Amino acid sequence: MAQAAVQASIGDSEFDRDTAVTHRAPGVYDAELSAGWTFGRAVNGGYLLALLGRALGEALPHSDPFTVSAHYLTTSEPGPAVIRAEVIRTGRTLSTGQASLFQYAEDGSEVERIRVLAAYGDLNELTDEVRTSAEAPEIPPLEHCLGPSDGPAPIERPAISYRVDVKLDPATVGWAVGAPSGKGEIRAWFSLADGRPADPFSLLLTVDALPPTSFDLGLKGWTPTVELTTHVRCRPAPGPLRVSVTTRNLAGGFLEEDAEVWDSEGRLVAQSRQLAKAPRG
Amino acid sequence: MAQAAVQASIGDSEFDRDTAVTHRAPGVYDAELSAGWTFGRAVNGGYLLALLGRALGEALPHSDPFTVSAHYLTTSEPGPAVIRAEVIRTGRTLSTGQASLFQYAEDGSEVERIRVLAAYGDLNELTDEVRTSAEAPEIPPLEHCLGPSDGPAPIERPAISYRVDVKLDPATVGWAVGAPSGKGEIRAWFSLADGRPADPFSLLLTVDALPPTSFDLGLKGWTPTVELTTHVRCRPAPGPLRVSVTTRNLAGGFLEEDAEVWDSEGRLVAQSRQLAKAPRG
Repeated sequence: MAQAAVQASIGDSEFDRDTAVTHRAPGVYDAELSAGWTFGRAVNGGYLLALLGRALGEALPHSDPFTVSAHYLTTSEPGPAVIRAEVIRTGRTLSTGQASLFQYAEDGSEVERIRVLAAYGDLNELTDEVRTSAEAPEIPPLEHCLGPSDGPAPIERPAISYRVDVKLDPATVGWAVGAPSGKGEIRAWFSLADGRPADPFSLLLTVDALPPTSFDLGLKGWTPTVELTTHVRCRPAPGPLRVSVTTRNLAGGFLEEDAEVWDSEGRLVAQSRQLAKAPRG
Repeated sequence: MAQAAVQASIGDSEFDRDTAVTHRAPGVYDAELSAGWTFGRAVNGGYLLALLGRALGEALPHSDPFTVSAHYLTTSEPGPAVIRAEVIRTGRTLSTGQASLFQYAEDGSEVERIRVLAAYGDLNELTDEVRTSAEAPEIPPLEHCLGPSDGPAPIERPAISYRVDVKLDPATVGWAVGAPSGKGEIRAWFSLADGRPADPFSLLLTVDALPPTSFDLGLKGWTPTVELTTHVRCRPAPGPLRVSVTTRNLAGGFLEEDAEVWDSEGRLVAQSRQLAKAPRG
């Protein structure tokens, strides 16, 4: 993957440009869903979450997402969108808001794509006590992990694979060569391709940026997200993130998928769980 | 605990009476928050979730909660309440709705307590394929587990302890006698005290009905829920449920808490995660 000549920064990067919102009126933000964050024809759910997160960060008195619950209603497409955000409650340490992302039908009417509820706070105001008992995933060093260009055969790469630098743990890539482990787990290093450091908004992207765990159960096909709740627990330190996604309850045509994101200082910076529809057949 | 002379049933039980809603107008449901489901002065968050769940079940074309995301805004109190529910989208297999529970300020104005987004479906329409890899917790037989009347000293029992029959795994009650394990886990058998069988709405109560895991970390005091997302994955079979709650990320003044509920047929019928504020000091 080509290195950017000048490393991107928070505020000046592909991610920032493609998740920018334009404040049009109180609570109303225009946005453009970039085709750069798609997997096939599907706009990545984490990218959409980050867009909504950014709009809410502008609408609410607190800047950092703490917990975001997103319900995905209809399929988004690259193109114009509008986000309508509402302040529900403001408090000293937390504020709560709601936001919906709409796109436009042929007749110009708005079609709701996603609705979220979120509590925001200030990650700088968290107390220092850390008693995390969860353990970071063991992943081989970055240089031993595998990206799309390491595959055994040339494949058409999804657009998003040029925006995110996902290097998979070789122990969790069997599915890519017809040998899924059956455990329903995938681990990877994650960075933004242009070198932009992680921040709370890019964490919203990160929790939904790995291949679906259903691949590691031997299933093929898209697993559309019904609902995704993400907790941002710490401002991430600079450097590559380690991401672990697991599923333990594929049943009845649905599966849950848990993601954990660990920063370079060993902090569990984000946790998420989504409910997704299992692929058909 | 006294056995009810006639076993309660789904539709005729304390839980049904105390989570009943009265349809006043389109999308408007009156309710009474019962003092029977309190822990101290706090109305149990799962009981509130079940009330909202019932209202949404009436408002939406699908009857069963599949995934419910609840943001707790202000502290509820026993007394009158109103739920305002809105249909966001209806589909063939899933519908999505939003609902808010309000109570009344002294001047009669409505104060929002909780707002939820939820996707509903039909649990009878789930496919038969079950590939759950998660394992049910090992809990000693019910008769070897401990309820409030098994404690070493008489304590004033919270009202909710008369409505729910929670029998704790002896391995996870150390905190009650000054010896928390430090692992942040609690396991218990769960039934409704009047014998009413479990159903999808009572599962919404169940995921928030155990003591807080922070007790097992040696913390004392209330852990108010900021946000709680619950997945109902299967209609529960009759019989006692096994519940396991765990926390792995107490940090920065907050903790997450995961609950899993297993029915008598060994199915993982519900999963939830909440973000809560850690107790002060």
